[in-house]
Amino acid sequence: METNSNTVTAGVILIGDELLSGRTQDTNLGTIARWLEPMGVQVGEARIVADDGDVITQTVRDFSARFDYVFTTGGIGPTHDDITADCIAGAFDVGISERADAIKALRERYSLQELNAARRRMARIPDGASLIKNPVSQAPGFQTGNVFTMAGVPSIMRGMLPDIEHRIKGGATVFSRSVTASGIGEGDAAAPLAEIEAKYDGVSLGSYPFFNAELRGVTFVARGRDEAMLDKVETELDALVAALTETS
Amino acid sequence: METNSNTVTAGVILIGDELLSGRTQDTNLGTIARWLEPMGVQVGEARIVADDGDVITQTVRDFSARFDYVFTTGGIGPTHDDITADCIAGAFDVGISERADAIKALRERYSLQELNAARRRMARIPDGASLIKNPVSQAPGFQTGNVFTMAGVPSIMRGMLPDIEHRIKGGATVFSRSVTASGIGEGDAAAPLAEIEAKYDGVSLGSYPFFNAELRGVTFVARGRDEAMLDKVETELDALVAALTETS
Repeated sequence: METNSNTVTAGVILIGDELLSGRTQDTNLGTIARWLEPMGVQVGEARIVADDGDVITQTVRDFSARFDYVFTTGGIGPTHDDITADCIAGAFDVGISERADAIKALRERYSLQELNAARRRMARIPDGASLIKNPVSQAPGFQTGNVFTMAGVPSIMRGMLPDIEHRIKGGATVFSRSVTASGIGEGDAAAPLAEIEAKYDGVSLGSYPFFNAELRGVTFVARGRDEAMLDKVETELDALVAALTETS
Repeated sequence: METNSNTVTAGVILIGDELLSGRTQDTNLGTIARWLEPMGVQVGEARIVADDGDVITQTVRDFSARFDYVFTTGGIGPTHDDITADCIAGAFDVGISERADAIKALRERYSLQELNAARRRMARIPDGASLIKNPVSQAPGFQTGNVFTMAGVPSIMRGMLPDIEHRIKGGATVFSRSVTASGIGEGDAAAPLAEIEAKYDGVSLGSYPFFNAELRGVTFVARGRDEAMLDKVETELDALVAALTETS
């Protein structure tokens, strides 16, 4: 894997029918993105896929080639719809089998009697993968090449991140500045905003309107690697807001 | 577009850097999925993509071929990063231009003076598309083939759904039953759960564990088109929970 120290990107694959039916609201993407940001890693795309072996396998293969790092959440529990480990093995064309170190981790939680066939499935790990510690419920995640496979339950997923952090070779940190102004319209800011962005190389400017019954307004977010430049952009945004507020 | 009356599927494309950075938590996917469910339309996959023209165009093209319906949210505002309309035109190989009916909609909100070049961009509509009414902030969405392009701000997106509903040819409704039990482990339920699923054709069974400091438990969700069959599955799930509770 070649890593460009300036632009390190990640793809996130969120696995599970319940995320697509609207039954469960995903929060893992935001958690992963905010955890990656200070390491200088930007999420380039996320996909929410069903419990469908072919789709999971193909998505892992595509993302592994396209991004520096890939994170998957979901589908590594003990039940029949937990097929992520097999899909990862399929995507990397490697075998999969029950591993002693994974069984050992499960034994910290489960008695020999509790460790039935279903729970032993959680110790099936693709060949060549290294385990990711799970301090919350012990069933390990695993790393296969540049793909990190984690649990779907948010508290368990978060618990796995510390054992991944040291394996990430980050890039230049991306900083941000934001300016929020109520009472102004996004359409009035659009032209000067594009001018500001054009002036500062390497800075991207986003504009996020908000509305409610009493209020409208916009938040402008500037993102880039050069903090001194971002400070200048912030000053320009403040001036833009002041000018628009006067005329509104 | 061929629509199978039994399995009607949708793809959802959520557009915007802010969703990938963790700055904004998407809620549109769940809203769309819960709105589609009673029409018998299931979301098959969702993608969260950056404000990147090539990626948006390619994703729209892929999803339009793969799903019966496609819904996009985001990127149709007045600023320089609002590129969705151009990408839709690109995906369908059609032109794009400012349209009188869209300008008329904008004029309900904006005076002629307020309707500057930036805001006029919101009236640029791919050739052949039909508009989607926006009762919240007037700037219209639009339908191009089987692709519905909507705003990203959740309150505005929700406001567009009523003018889309009559355009959807739904499928057989999918019903669900859920049974929640605390104090039992997912791994103890896995084998009998797989047996229940195997017995009922057309029913899919999901298992969703939950944890906190004091409590663990599982919610089982059965989904299918035959309500009488689902009632039987629910009875079996109740019995399973009772059996597991006794032995735990």
